[in-house]
Amino acid sequence: MDKPKLFTVGPTYVNEDVREEMKRQMFSHRSSDYVKLHSELIEKLREFLNTENEIFIYTSSSTGCMESGVRNMISDGGTGLSTICGAFGKRFGEIIEQNGRKLVESEVEWGEANRGEQLDEVLSKNPGVEVVTITHCETSTGLLNPLDELCKVAKEHDVLTMVDTVSSMSGTRIEIDKLGIDFCFFGVQKCFSVPPGLAIAAVSKKAMEKAETVKNRGHYFDFLNLKKYNDKNMIPYTPPIPQMFGLSKQLDMITDEGAGNRFYRHSKISARVRNGCKDLGFGVFPDEKYAAPTLSCISNPLEVDLAEMNSKMKERGFILASGYGKIKDMTFRIGNMGNVTLDDVNEMLENLEEVVG
Amino acid sequence: MDKPKLFTVGPTYVNEDVREEMKRQMFSHRSSDYVKLHSELIEKLREFLNTENEIFIYTSSSTGCMESGVRNMISDGGTGLSTICGAFGKRFGEIIEQNGRKLVESEVEWGEANRGEQLDEVLSKNPGVEVVTITHCETSTGLLNPLDELCKVAKEHDVLTMVDTVSSMSGTRIEIDKLGIDFCFFGVQKCFSVPPGLAIAAVSKKAMEKAETVKNRGHYFDFLNLKKYNDKNMIPYTPPIPQMFGLSKQLDMITDEGAGNRFYRHSKISARVRNGCKDLGFGVFPDEKYAAPTLSCISNPLEVDLAEMNSKMKERGFILASGYGKIKDMTFRIGNMGNVTLDDVNEMLENLEEVVG
Repeated sequence: MDKPKLFTVGPTYVNEDVREEMKRQMFSHRSSDYVKLHSELIEKLREFLNTENEIFIYTSSSTGCMESGVRNMISDGGTGLSTICGAFGKRFGEIIEQNGRKLVESEVEWGEANRGEQLDEVLSKNPGVEVVTITHCETSTGLLNPLDELCKVAKEHDVLTMVDTVSSMSGTRIEIDKLGIDFCFFGVQKCFSVPPGLAIAAVSKKAMEKAETVKNRGHYFDFLNLKKYNDKNMIPYTPPIPQMFGLSKQLDMITDEGAGNRFYRHSKISARVRNGCKDLGFGVFPDEKYAAPTLSCISNPLEVDLAEMNSKMKERGFILASGYGKIKDMTFRIGNMGNVTLDDVNEMLENLEEVVG
Repeated sequence: MDKPKLFTVGPTYVNEDVREEMKRQMFSHRSSDYVKLHSELIEKLREFLNTENEIFIYTSSSTGCMESGVRNMISDGGTGLSTICGAFGKRFGEIIEQNGRKLVESEVEWGEANRGEQLDEVLSKNPGVEVVTITHCETSTGLLNPLDELCKVAKEHDVLTMVDTVSSMSGTRIEIDKLGIDFCFFGVQKCFSVPPGLAIAAVSKKAMEKAETVKNRGHYFDFLNLKKYNDKNMIPYTPPIPQMFGLSKQLDMITDEGAGNRFYRHSKISARVRNGCKDLGFGVFPDEKYAAPTLSCISNPLEVDLAEMNSKMKERGFILASGYGKIKDMTFRIGNMGNVTLDDVNEMLENLEEVVG
């Protein structure tokens, strides 16, 4: 019971090698030791992300990247468009408004995917939109939006794209440059299985050029200041060095596994989760055509007492995630991000069968 | 040579117990395990800081707290006053301007302290000032500003105070409530000797009330949102859980040492550093009456080749800090923050004598 199996939706289970790596002694963030850590991490990220874009290291959670994107890529008082199909897309829109920008929403029912056609319509009606936000994997509904068609439409309208890949990056293939994503960001505590406290973003040349024209970008999340220090393999303030060591180690382990194998593993295991749950009489909350490969949002037609179920599963050493937002009480979620294996999932499903059976 | 003695000015040397504690397995930041960690940490901080103020946990460096204070405590378009006696006070002023607020500077020569009399004059001439920023320990010049007289003047003018205690908190006594500090913040990688990635702020009721009147506070650093989650023993996004474990452990160790003993240790050791350096023919850069108890900024009348000196010291396993900002080339700095002992300093000074002798 020391180490329950985490099927949460982040922070995820961190293996011993990564945690051991994070134990290293500290050093100054203005030293040659730090420059080495920073430059090697950027190099590994560049290879894994397969992008020519600028890669920033943030001392923040991914939510900080959202604020950064909004303050740098939408003019002060300008307009951003949020595609929304769940709680995290909704919040992205709120962050736009809270930073004094205007918001246009392109929303669908929870459980459905945001589609290109609707985005095209909304953009056509709102020619002033500067940026479209896309939640790749909507963690509240377990849904993976079709990034290719959404990015294609955004490009046709010549608007910049900010893509939240928080719960998809390293769990499925994302072609940043091919899709033309201008701001692609994620934390390390989901599919990378590194403890939280570090976020990463890849920023296109166009996004950097836009930032130069935007006033009131602030200091902490300012692209231009981040770039100035990134050129010296530093960040403007103190970075979360332990998590950087952890991510660097994890990227080595991903190389060993093979990125393609990793994506396939996530996809196969999430299908096993969904099918296993359906076998027990549960349902899949989102349109299954768009079901996420990294977590499953499970509906409850049997009206099982979910709080009791989660509690019994915890007693057995398996931590599942509750529902989120307005579907909190009618769903539960099973994450399979990061280091979760098929054996882990089979064992969890066997226990789930005993608990609800 | 595995573990050089860090006499840097942060991140500082982290002892084994703290790093071991940070190795704990992760869990969801919306779980009862997290609520326990959060509430216990706040309780320990409340005891150590001896304050009734709201205590916030930030997933950021201390620079993020500066942005937070500025966006919440100065009206959008309003005016802040920065007291400046070095690079970090100067930057605090820049952060005010970069967030679209107006700036008034109250500046003295580097090496001198900001004094109450000057602040009183500048505040009298600028009745529109809403907030005064104070850099308690100016890390670029190794100077500790007289917090009591500065806070007293600010109170007389009925303006809010934001105090940067980044390189002083836990190295010297700071009476937050008695001085009436409205926003007191610090990181954990200096005198607390915890790896970087976590910052803490104590926010007064007056500062919270002010925030309610301020528009365009953003999302990530919004006091009201932080408070809403703090009431549930959570933060609005993902917290840096390993550093929270580390700080919690370190606060236990500070209790064991005794806070008073810890402050006395810092004071005694920094005096030893300054006297040891003077014995070798170096000077003390700041007005010695205000020399910081946590780091020493050393001037170089002998015109020793400082780069070569630091490099030779590093070969011997002692890491000193370079000068900073406009006095970078004419000074060097010796930190004694956190876990540094008198024996460490004596050993370092013996080696320094051999290197420059």
